Amino acid sequence: MASHYPSFRSSVPWLILSLEVVFITLFYFFSSLDGAPQSNISYPAFQDVNHMVIFGFGFFLVFLRRYGFSSTGFNLLLVVLGVQCSVLAEDLLVLLCQRASEGGLKRITKATVSMTAVVISTGAVLGKANPVQLILMTIVEIIVFHGSRWMSSIFLQVSDSVGMMHVHLFGAYFGLAVSSHFSEPSPRAEKNRSTPKSELLSMLGTLFLWVFWPSFNSVLAVDNKNKAIYNTYFALAASAVTAFLLSVLTTKDGRFQMAHIHSAVLAGGVAVGHAAPSIEYPWIAMILGLLASGITILGSYCLQRCLNPALKIHDTSGVHFTFGLPAVLGALAQVLLLVIQNWTDFPRLGNLVVIHVGAFCLTISVALLMGFITGLILNLKLLKVIPVSKYFEDQFYWE
Amino acid sequence: MASHYPSFRSSVPWLILSLEVVFITLFYFFSSLDGAPQSNISYPAFQDVNHMVIFGFGFFLVFLRRYGFSSTGFNLLLVVLGVQCSVLAEDLLVLLCQRASEGGLKRITKATVSMTAVVISTGAVLGKANPVQLILMTIVEIIVFHGSRWMSSIFLQVSDSVGMMHVHLFGAYFGLAVSSHFSEPSPRAEKNRSTPKSELLSMLGTLFLWVFWPSFNSVLAVDNKNKAIYNTYFALAASAVTAFLLSVLTTKDGRFQMAHIHSAVLAGGVAVGHAAPSIEYPWIAMILGLLASGITILGSYCLQRCLNPALKIHDTSGVHFTFGLPAVLGALAQVLLLVIQNWTDFPRLGNLVVIHVGAFCLTISVALLMGFITGLILNLKLLKVIPVSKYFEDQFYWE
Amino acid sequence: MASHYPSFRSSVPWLILSLEVVFITLFYFFSSLDGAPQSNISYPAFQDVNHMVIFGFGFFLVFLRRYGFSSTGFNLLLVVLGVQCSVLAEDLLVLLCQRASEGGLKRITKATVSMTAVVISTGAVLGKANPVQLILMTIVEIIVFHGSRWMSSIFLQVSDSVGMMHVHLFGAYFGLAVSSHFSEPSPRAEKNRSTPKSELLSMLGTLFLWVFWPSFNSVLAVDNKNKAIYNTYFALAASAVTAFLLSVLTTKDGRFQMAHIHSAVLAGGVAVGHAAPSIEYPWIAMILGLLASGITILGSYCLQRCLNPALKIHDTSGVHFTFGLPAVLGALAQVLLLVIQNWTDFPRLGNLVVIHVGAFCLTISVALLMGFITGLILNLKLLKVIPVSKYFEDQFYWE
Repeated sequence: MASHYPSFRSSVPWLILSLEVVFITLFYFFSSLDGAPQSNISYPAFQDVNHMVIFGFGFFLVFLRRYGFSSTGFNLLLVVLGVQCSVLAEDLLVLLCQRASEGGLKRITKATVSMTAVVISTGAVLGKANPVQLILMTIVEIIVFHGSRWMSSIFLQVSDSVGMMHVHLFGAYFGLAVSSHFSEPSPRAEKNRSTPKSELLSMLGTLFLWVFWPSFNSVLAVDNKNKAIYNTYFALAASAVTAFLLSVLTTKDGRFQMAHIHSAVLAGGVAVGHAAPSIEYPWIAMILGLLASGITILGSYCLQRCLNPALKIHDTSGVHFTFGLPAVLGALAQVLLLVIQNWTDFPRLGNLVVIHVGAFCLTISVALLMGFITGLILNLKLLKVIPVSKYFEDQFYWE
Repeated sequence: MASHYPSFRSSVPWLILSLEVVFITLFYFFSSLDGAPQSNISYPAFQDVNHMVIFGFGFFLVFLRRYGFSSTGFNLLLVVLGVQCSVLAEDLLVLLCQRASEGGLKRITKATVSMTAVVISTGAVLGKANPVQLILMTIVEIIVFHGSRWMSSIFLQVSDSVGMMHVHLFGAYFGLAVSSHFSEPSPRAEKNRSTPKSELLSMLGTLFLWVFWPSFNSVLAVDNKNKAIYNTYFALAASAVTAFLLSVLTTKDGRFQMAHIHSAVLAGGVAVGHAAPSIEYPWIAMILGLLASGITILGSYCLQRCLNPALKIHDTSGVHFTFGLPAVLGALAQVLLLVIQNWTDFPRLGNLVVIHVGAFCLTISVALLMGFITGLILNLKLLKVIPVSKYFEDQFYWE
Repeated sequence: MASHYPSFRSSVPWLILSLEVVFITLFYFFSSLDGAPQSNISYPAFQDVNHMVIFGFGFFLVFLRRYGFSSTGFNLLLVVLGVQCSVLAEDLLVLLCQRASEGGLKRITKATVSMTAVVISTGAVLGKANPVQLILMTIVEIIVFHGSRWMSSIFLQVSDSVGMMHVHLFGAYFGLAVSSHFSEPSPRAEKNRSTPKSELLSMLGTLFLWVFWPSFNSVLAVDNKNKAIYNTYFALAASAVTAFLLSVLTTKDGRFQMAHIHSAVLAGGVAVGHAAPSIEYPWIAMILGLLASGITILGSYCLQRCLNPALKIHDTSGVHFTFGLPAVLGALAQVLLLVIQNWTDFPRLGNLVVIHVGAFCLTISVALLMGFITGLILNLKLLKVIPVSKYFEDQFYWE
């Protein structure tokens, strides 16, 4: 038996150890976390986001029948590594841009929000990448994400909270580009199916994400936090309703499908991310939620049947339609809303549209390009790529 | 196989779609959510209540062995539909009563608290009603509940927060009246039993409800929020203790029974709902919690053996003794406390007693009457009533 | 069958009932909870701690394959009994020390934090003690813990928040001393193993504890709450990273072990408990978290192989290395930090060191001594000690 399970003793611990030593050293050279005045981040809102990333996404990804330990365990490992890296990357940006440094709670909150990108990308390679690959991907992705935000901020004067909301878009397309380098599992394999038990646990994670999403969309908003909260709430409500509606319509025998519910109930929250603090009327948020949920379910239908086989992409937890497409819709919707709100003031409108469309294109191209390169590097022989037959197996990593 | 599972494609999606279109249209004609000054609702307290209704009740109802998907999934669907309907119904009341409109967060919070009535009613017909019946019941119930609050407020000058606390009473008796129209499942059936696994997941939901109940009882209180919090805490503590005590005494061989714990630990929170902000000493709350838990367990013993078979009522998750009886006790207790506090001021006392007893009688009669009518309508042939043999089956609705 | 399961009807209910009657009577004679000005405890932070103790620890202890009902159920029972007892014990201390009484929320929060000691001790005798033994242990331990705090406060002038942070130390060593009186289960027994399902549910509890630990360490801090929050966060992050690192290094075939992750991810939070509000730089907290996690995993290796068999101690959920050793490290680290911060002011330094070392020694000796005596009393024949063959069996207590 032992020969079937290659030991990670020679790679994982030393990689983790060297990263942690580097982090502690860098923290030593950067100043204390308390050097700045208090921000407007509330601690309960930070806890909601922290809870989402650690617990909600951990259990959201638990749907594979034999991959529960890895889904929750590796998610914790990657988040804690990524948050430390993200705080340091942000500190570097502050130095480079000569901005005022921010309070400790705000820095951890921003780091946790940024980590959503990595957690989403992980979903695309879930069960296919080994811990070494996942850790390297986390570090590269979080640095590239901050780089992309920095470029948006320098070249396009995109504000920080707008740049941060590209997190779903970046995560989904980075993950897809990475996953294009991994071999596809056999479609007849049993192991990448779910069981009713694992789907129910995944529902647990999904409900957590659903409940806390308004906190996610409002925690970094500078003003209009309350508007962000209820616009997100109504968008989520509309997308949950639409998820049930379309699930019945698209399944063969007119029954609900749990996988549809998991991915589509969250679509509204993703889509409204950009515009949440500025939408004036809840019905706009509801229409956005409805469209997002529709795109997700129709996307899941088309992508899994047409696009993914053609491009040889295997997207384990469907991040493309769960987070990618709603994020694209959200970015387009915000441009549309800007056009409607500012159509009298043409020069200002042009400027705003250029900024938003530019930031969108920049984010998505950086994500695809760097994801592609990262995927290439991760599949070097050096990193002990897992054979397809060992995909989706907890036993491979856990006693 | 397919013939055994009738498709809901011709009914569920169109019902959901038309409801959502109506909601969005009505939201379009009503004003923005932000038209009013800030209320004293704190966002974390709203989140606690939201979490309770979506996650806590979803998993509280997960105890049936083959009905986990429907318990959590349909709960989400009904809550999001109901909250939108409830916000609109409340807006209509504001128009009718010409009251000042309230801030967005307060409106969503009130809608979420109101939805508890529907969630409780769902428990009584759990596994027996199909999605079409559940959705219709939700819409009717939430409108009737707001109507009943409006009557209390107009005819009896009952304050809003008192009227809102009748939510458990209304939910339990409305649900019972509805369930009296559904056929009883065979008592020997395996499917309406629980497994240790499903009971443990249900314990998860119960503990969530237990932890967040102080938020539920205090979130809408105008003042004395802190008193409401710890009176509820001590009532819950006393009822948890009593639940263990009586469980051992009432089982055949002197062991604990999980079903007793699930229903009785929450009884104190329900019973203290009305009086929580006004109780001066924690020992009063504790005695109330103790009595409520006692009533629940003795009620579960008597009702299941005597009353329910006689009245041909089948109450799947025991909402009568879990929420109904403690709510009756709570209403009586509040009247008693008012008598004790105001016995020197006889005219005022008389007035107060009339108001509270009147509101109680009004709520319970509206709930029973309208529940009975709703049950009749729901069992029209048109709505594809499920045969008894297909009760409690996830497979009937989920792929 | 019935003869195999002795009835607890003659003991458990009457013990619970008499305790509850005593509690209500004592609450009657003590004043209302609202007699004091508002404290600086925030309600959401209290809820986090409440959630941790009721839900987090309940599911943290759920890892035994046939003991899920008892783990979560008895945890709830013990916490609610203990909190009432703890509020009363604290009131007595206030009377004895003639201190100003505190607001209701602060008193419940302190009681809930104190209960962590009992919950940790329960872990050491998990599956081996019957409910009567557990209830008696709870009452004795909570009173002894408050006595130990009172002694620290009177004889050593230790401040209240410092004394409270000895809660892990006290709980772990009290539990170990008690467990030394229980017979060891057979090492070949199947029942004290875990299953993948139960480990995953235990991971759920662990992630809850991990997420909420910053609230635990900051809720009672008088000032520097924010510092306490992010120092705890970084310590937890470093210990989570180290847990994965060392888990691979210490297992036979270089794979991760879930039990290591469960115990070691929390070690950083325990170790940083004392020093969290005073650490200036996050890298210090990170190093502390790293060391704590290391001590936990190495401790689990050594203790289970050498010390426990020699001393005939069976520590079901490993509280010695999960909470005991990191707490010792935390206490030592705080003394070291005091030495570094105050080395210029020698007389003040001496005084501080004496206080902290004295409080540490006092706490650990009271815990060991009283735990030993309690263990003796609990194993009197009167209390229906469970035979070793019936250890770790839900069926023994639950229908």
